[in-house]
Amino acid sequence: MTAFDPPTAAVAAVVAAALAEDAPWGDISSEAAIPADATATARVVSRSTGILAGGLALQLAFTTADEHLRVERVRDDGTPLAPGTIIAEIAGPARGILLGERVALNLAQRLSGVATLTRAYVDAVAGTSARIVDTRKTTPGLRMLEKAAVRAGGARNHRFSLSDAVMLKDNHLAVLTAQGLDVTEAIRTVRARIPHTTHLEVEIDRLDQLAAVLAAEPDTIMLDNFPLADLREAVALIGSRAITEASGGVTLDSVRAIAETGVDVISVGALTHSAPALDVGLDIEL
Amino acid sequence: MTAFDPPTAAVAAVVAAALAEDAPWGDISSEAAIPADATATARVVSRSTGILAGGLALQLAFTTADEHLRVERVRDDGTPLAPGTIIAEIAGPARGILLGERVALNLAQRLSGVATLTRAYVDAVAGTSARIVDTRKTTPGLRMLEKAAVRAGGARNHRFSLSDAVMLKDNHLAVLTAQGLDVTEAIRTVRARIPHTTHLEVEIDRLDQLAAVLAAEPDTIMLDNFPLADLREAVALIGSRAITEASGGVTLDSVRAIAETGVDVISVGALTHSAPALDVGLDIEL
Amino acid sequence: MTAFDPPTAAVAAVVAAALAEDAPWGDISSEAAIPADATATARVVSRSTGILAGGLALQLAFTTADEHLRVERVRDDGTPLAPGTIIAEIAGPARGILLGERVALNLAQRLSGVATLTRAYVDAVAGTSARIVDTRKTTPGLRMLEKAAVRAGGARNHRFSLSDAVMLKDNHLAVLTAQGLDVTEAIRTVRARIPHTTHLEVEIDRLDQLAAVLAAEPDTIMLDNFPLADLREAVALIGSRAITEASGGVTLDSVRAIAETGVDVISVGALTHSAPALDVGLDIEL
Amino acid sequence: MTAFDPPTAAVAAVVAAALAEDAPWGDISSEAAIPADATATARVVSRSTGILAGGLALQLAFTTADEHLRVERVRDDGTPLAPGTIIAEIAGPARGILLGERVALNLAQRLSGVATLTRAYVDAVAGTSARIVDTRKTTPGLRMLEKAAVRAGGARNHRFSLSDAVMLKDNHLAVLTAQGLDVTEAIRTVRARIPHTTHLEVEIDRLDQLAAVLAAEPDTIMLDNFPLADLREAVALIGSRAITEASGGVTLDSVRAIAETGVDVISVGALTHSAPALDVGLDIEL
Amino acid sequence: MTAFDPPTAAVAAVVAAALAEDAPWGDISSEAAIPADATATARVVSRSTGILAGGLALQLAFTTADEHLRVERVRDDGTPLAPGTIIAEIAGPARGILLGERVALNLAQRLSGVATLTRAYVDAVAGTSARIVDTRKTTPGLRMLEKAAVRAGGARNHRFSLSDAVMLKDNHLAVLTAQGLDVTEAIRTVRARIPHTTHLEVEIDRLDQLAAVLAAEPDTIMLDNFPLADLREAVALIGSRAITEASGGVTLDSVRAIAETGVDVISVGALTHSAPALDVGLDIEL
Amino acid sequence: MTAFDPPTAAVAAVVAAALAEDAPWGDISSEAAIPADATATARVVSRSTGILAGGLALQLAFTTADEHLRVERVRDDGTPLAPGTIIAEIAGPARGILLGERVALNLAQRLSGVATLTRAYVDAVAGTSARIVDTRKTTPGLRMLEKAAVRAGGARNHRFSLSDAVMLKDNHLAVLTAQGLDVTEAIRTVRARIPHTTHLEVEIDRLDQLAAVLAAEPDTIMLDNFPLADLREAVALIGSRAITEASGGVTLDSVRAIAETGVDVISVGALTHSAPALDVGLDIEL
Repeated sequence: MTAFDPPTAAVAAVVAAALAEDAPWGDISSEAAIPADATATARVVSRSTGILAGGLALQLAFTTADEHLRVERVRDDGTPLAPGTIIAEIAGPARGILLGERVALNLAQRLSGVATLTRAYVDAVAGTSARIVDTRKTTPGLRMLEKAAVRAGGARNHRFSLSDAVMLKDNHLAVLTAQGLDVTEAIRTVRARIPHTTHLEVEIDRLDQLAAVLAAEPDTIMLDNFPLADLREAVALIGSRAITEASGGVTLDSVRAIAETGVDVISVGALTHSAPALDVGLDIEL
Repeated sequence: MTAFDPPTAAVAAVVAAALAEDAPWGDISSEAAIPADATATARVVSRSTGILAGGLALQLAFTTADEHLRVERVRDDGTPLAPGTIIAEIAGPARGILLGERVALNLAQRLSGVATLTRAYVDAVAGTSARIVDTRKTTPGLRMLEKAAVRAGGARNHRFSLSDAVMLKDNHLAVLTAQGLDVTEAIRTVRARIPHTTHLEVEIDRLDQLAAVLAAEPDTIMLDNFPLADLREAVALIGSRAITEASGGVTLDSVRAIAETGVDVISVGALTHSAPALDVGLDIEL
Repeated sequence: MTAFDPPTAAVAAVVAAALAEDAPWGDISSEAAIPADATATARVVSRSTGILAGGLALQLAFTTADEHLRVERVRDDGTPLAPGTIIAEIAGPARGILLGERVALNLAQRLSGVATLTRAYVDAVAGTSARIVDTRKTTPGLRMLEKAAVRAGGARNHRFSLSDAVMLKDNHLAVLTAQGLDVTEAIRTVRARIPHTTHLEVEIDRLDQLAAVLAAEPDTIMLDNFPLADLREAVALIGSRAITEASGGVTLDSVRAIAETGVDVISVGALTHSAPALDVGLDIEL
Repeated sequence: MTAFDPPTAAVAAVVAAALAEDAPWGDISSEAAIPADATATARVVSRSTGILAGGLALQLAFTTADEHLRVERVRDDGTPLAPGTIIAEIAGPARGILLGERVALNLAQRLSGVATLTRAYVDAVAGTSARIVDTRKTTPGLRMLEKAAVRAGGARNHRFSLSDAVMLKDNHLAVLTAQGLDVTEAIRTVRARIPHTTHLEVEIDRLDQLAAVLAAEPDTIMLDNFPLADLREAVALIGSRAITEASGGVTLDSVRAIAETGVDVISVGALTHSAPALDVGLDIEL
Repeated sequence: MTAFDPPTAAVAAVVAAALAEDAPWGDISSEAAIPADATATARVVSRSTGILAGGLALQLAFTTADEHLRVERVRDDGTPLAPGTIIAEIAGPARGILLGERVALNLAQRLSGVATLTRAYVDAVAGTSARIVDTRKTTPGLRMLEKAAVRAGGARNHRFSLSDAVMLKDNHLAVLTAQGLDVTEAIRTVRARIPHTTHLEVEIDRLDQLAAVLAAEPDTIMLDNFPLADLREAVALIGSRAITEASGGVTLDSVRAIAETGVDVISVGALTHSAPALDVGLDIEL
Repeated sequence: MTAFDPPTAAVAAVVAAALAEDAPWGDISSEAAIPADATATARVVSRSTGILAGGLALQLAFTTADEHLRVERVRDDGTPLAPGTIIAEIAGPARGILLGERVALNLAQRLSGVATLTRAYVDAVAGTSARIVDTRKTTPGLRMLEKAAVRAGGARNHRFSLSDAVMLKDNHLAVLTAQGLDVTEAIRTVRARIPHTTHLEVEIDRLDQLAAVLAAEPDTIMLDNFPLADLREAVALIGSRAITEASGGVTLDSVRAIAETGVDVISVGALTHSAPALDVGLDIEL
């Protein structure tokens, strides 16, 4: 277990499903070509530059494919990779290595892609006080792994799911104000209904919405798609009365200027929904 | 059901798992703000230009979130999208719409991203005889959906898994030749062990390997990372004796020249491992 | 769907597992005695005084046992029950009613027991500003249902799981201070590592621990097993700088005095770990 | 494995589900405060007086949370506990201990509560020939564990489910007599339809129903809510021709008098539906 | 639902798994040849003589393959079939019919094979008092369906599993007698430990074992592989003091003579482990 | 792992489900009669003549029943068995051996029955060029194991499922020709829609259908229920232009004559749908 590993059982379940998906009837190529008792060694090697993530998933892909495989993780998640960096070494039944290979690489490539893109955003705001965070725009079924990859890339997570923090958007508030409450009362009503341990964030998309929201003392105010000038003004108006979060179409080009407005948090959907895979390969020796 | 829909039960399982992932304890924001009996209508709308895929997954995300939701799919998978194109219309319980929203969009965005990138490759080889196909470099858990998205984008699928076609790589052949067989005999030995309905593909990475492989009469020969000149020569040498497949680092820039060598099939990992999400949104009216 | 219903899919999964547990090979009594096409009506009736919870689970126990059963929920969760109060009416295949009966009642009795005990605690602190909340001392597998029953009883939930709020206990702080941090720094270090949307609660069990914790600005301070006088003093010292939570061996006899110290939140494990079942029965008419 | 342990795979499944329920996204407190490689030892200790049950579940909660944890069960199920009695000792990764703690305690507390209450009933009828048994009024999902806890408390089990013994109630008989059979014939008809290995029990609630039932030679006759005098008379009339079972609202106050009527079996729903949790705690040393 | 149908949910689970097994990536033939909106009708028809079983499984194979299929069960389980007998009629999407066909037929053929062989055994003992029953030698995963098929064939079931009746074999008794008990005491010891609702059967394989077993008053005595003369003598000796069961290598040739010994029950493993499939086909009209 | 073993995880899943089916509440006989710490040894022994299959399933039945059991597989799958041949030796907890026994034997008997019947067909065509293959007429849930048993018996597999090869029957072609295509065009249309790695087989049932099919260059032509003379003629006409497959009601009596027509492949449904179980037993020593 290393610092960024999600719970083993959860990762093992993802890996087992992926292996079943990739070989519902076994690996007919290996079964036809390679004796059941042949052994081999292999290395997982980076073919490009980036940040490693998904090490536990990679390991479990091999050990689940064949429990007799031994996997040594040579680099921890969060480590920089260059072409040729050895990530892991595997030894044991040759059929097992070939059975686990594609699932291991698919996961390591995707998750390292996330970590690598995340690191680029984190580096882009270096020296500012802004924290880069992810969103719920993750791959269905892989959220836990992708959120760990974001942490391996040096950023922090936003809420994990609809169940662990309240995010009030205009739709929620519209329903409540249609019942005769003003916006401040609406937010306070929600606060009264939720656990005291639940963080309350409210999204606004115009400066003129700020005062009423601020009066309700939310924990965080999300400033969605604000022009830079408005963002700067909102941050100043809010001060330390709430955490400020900028969101909406953030790119590597725009993120630094956003961070320099003094906003506390910048959430970036692209970290998980559009990160290209990092090139990671397997060198096998039979 | 439309032409590109995968089996409903399989898609429903992916969607149900994604909803559980996104709301293990329910949607606490909606439950605190919106009455259980409030209803709403909503539209899934494209915010950019591309090709639609994932329509069934999108539909099931809402109907699984709340069985009382009615979803009309306005566009079929494979349809071109422009900013503002309405993809689907939803009506029913407001909480259900908000519960299904993120899963629906995450799937539709990712799968439409795959279809959109695929179409770009297909268009790039228009007029040649080359067929664009995908690889096994898919997202773990989403292979069936991503392969359907590739079809929606106008390309064809490669094998689905390790179980439904044989692909012999140098490692497989090395094991067999170490037993005293020459390459031609090795391939024939594999052929004799597999079902007569199993396609046999052999990968080579140099021209000088071609003759021995061709003598064994494989169904397809994969020409991996061949320079264009070698590729052209290999295609000519093979003629109609096997299907020819080019693979390895194919990009939108290089794919046309590869197709013009006369190769039958071009496999492109990027279709599924590096397609950026297409921007698709939800407009809700409470 | 009514105000306290958890997500249907989650409840349905609990119910389906319970039915399989109660009839792995079917209901051999009914199958031997009652024709497959016999129909009946039945009423779920309270046999004692309390608060209803578990209505959705009760309904799904019947409709999952036999999809042809029709169930009308006559009372909503949170409703007071007296001996004879009709809770639900069922009509359809007689075998289905008998198959669903025990699972329906086991769930309704247990959850109504939780709601009933909860209401007693809520009533006991009426007129004070204290909020009664539950804990993680729930029945394995039934947490979502029991937390909903607590809400039906008029209280609020604490965190749902280890994943949706941080609770730092002496063990956590001991590890951090062993690394050379003081308590205030330790808490701030944790804050820096968690999502900005994660609530941070710190547990103390003596007044002299308060100052260092308060300096780190946690969201909630749990005052564990504090004597009343110390509790009153802690509440005064903390003021509005954090939410105050009393915990530890709270009983119906002691809860009012605790509430009168001015504490914000009182967490009560007994709500879920020791609530006796409420007597609910089924009257069937064949 | 000890005498009262249910099948390991079944217990492991309950435990794994409970851990996933308690930490869907991991234990964010420990992950923020405690290094991945920190180790600790801990003891599970009784804080009150009772009977131990659930030892296997407790053990598996820790070993499933982290396979590197070592658990020694110091006391077997069925053992008396006093405040301070050490139940189990755990050693290994600190995060794993904290992750498994709540699930381990929730199960051990609940199941030991069942065993403790059971023992009170068993002691109350000491010296009589009556056997205390449980019912199907168990916690959905935990029946196997609760039935084992009843055995650990010194009582015996009733049938496990609707599938492993026939229990004919008035509803079943009413359907059959409506077809023109008398009660004796109705019972014999059922006997002819069921496996020869299936025990046949018939429930009556008035003395005047006895003769017709007895004539059909059931294996057990359940005397439901009989006044003591009627119970005594029924037991005498039945003699050794069937097993006699008293049921209905049995309490610790009433059970001895019931036993002294000479009845063979007394079934007590409260053993599983209303047993308060036993106080069991974890002392951890980091 | 008809008289022999097992619980729907259990059958649906078997069918869903079978469909996933038969089409992990969909039915590529139909998807390539048949439009998504093409409809068809079809008839399931017997091609030979036998007894129908598995009607519910057959129905669910189609409705699970495509929820838009309508299936009418024309014959009930237990009905005699001749070549040409129509079993069920299906209408709806053509792809769905083809997707469900093989699973539907595989189940109907196998289960009708069991019912048909069972009926032959039942007919062979007609006029005697012997009851034909099955064993636990069923197909892993299909026990519930095969036991229902045995009932459809006119026989009765033995115990369903290791959990719902005790069967003491020489191994069990050897362990107990090694502890110093005689056989009679050993059996009584077991009786004291099991639920009063659990049937107790003891297996013997020689006449000289009978007296000690009979003294312990078991519910059933299994006479394993007894020669006919010994079987007759054992039946006479036991009289009405226990149910008598003959087992061991029973064939259609030998079963009548065994029945004529007066034995109560004859258990036949071949009913489920060696029944040839009945020929059932599908006639489709597009 | 031996040559015929399917993927361990898939076999383990089948075995675990079978054990749960056979002992949902544990083995009450053993639990009542045999101490938890008693150990034993046992041998799985053939009681008849045949071919072994299912060795991995047999092994896992014991090790899943109790992880402390040690199993040595003495014979590999594919080995001839005679009465008395020892197949495997087991040592460890006595309860575990008895718990695993029936599932282990049920699987080994059924799968060895398949291998034994398969070998009879293979032997019957010895010296011809025909290859015996199986069909999709397998036991739902056991296809992977039965297909491995067919290989252990010396035959080859046909396609695994609807997903890994195309088989066009008259229904498929009827739909396409109704759209105005002739048969040759219809087949080519399908070829264009499927992966290049998908084998295309076309079924005909009369000689006059051959020319149009052959013109479309399918990979295999299935000659269904052809009289021997027609079969011989079809084989001659097709020559090496496609693989030829005979199917339909093949028996041990007819298979040799079919093989002597020169057909390449003979598919036999009976291998899996009607193979009687092979008698395999367990000798236990306590």
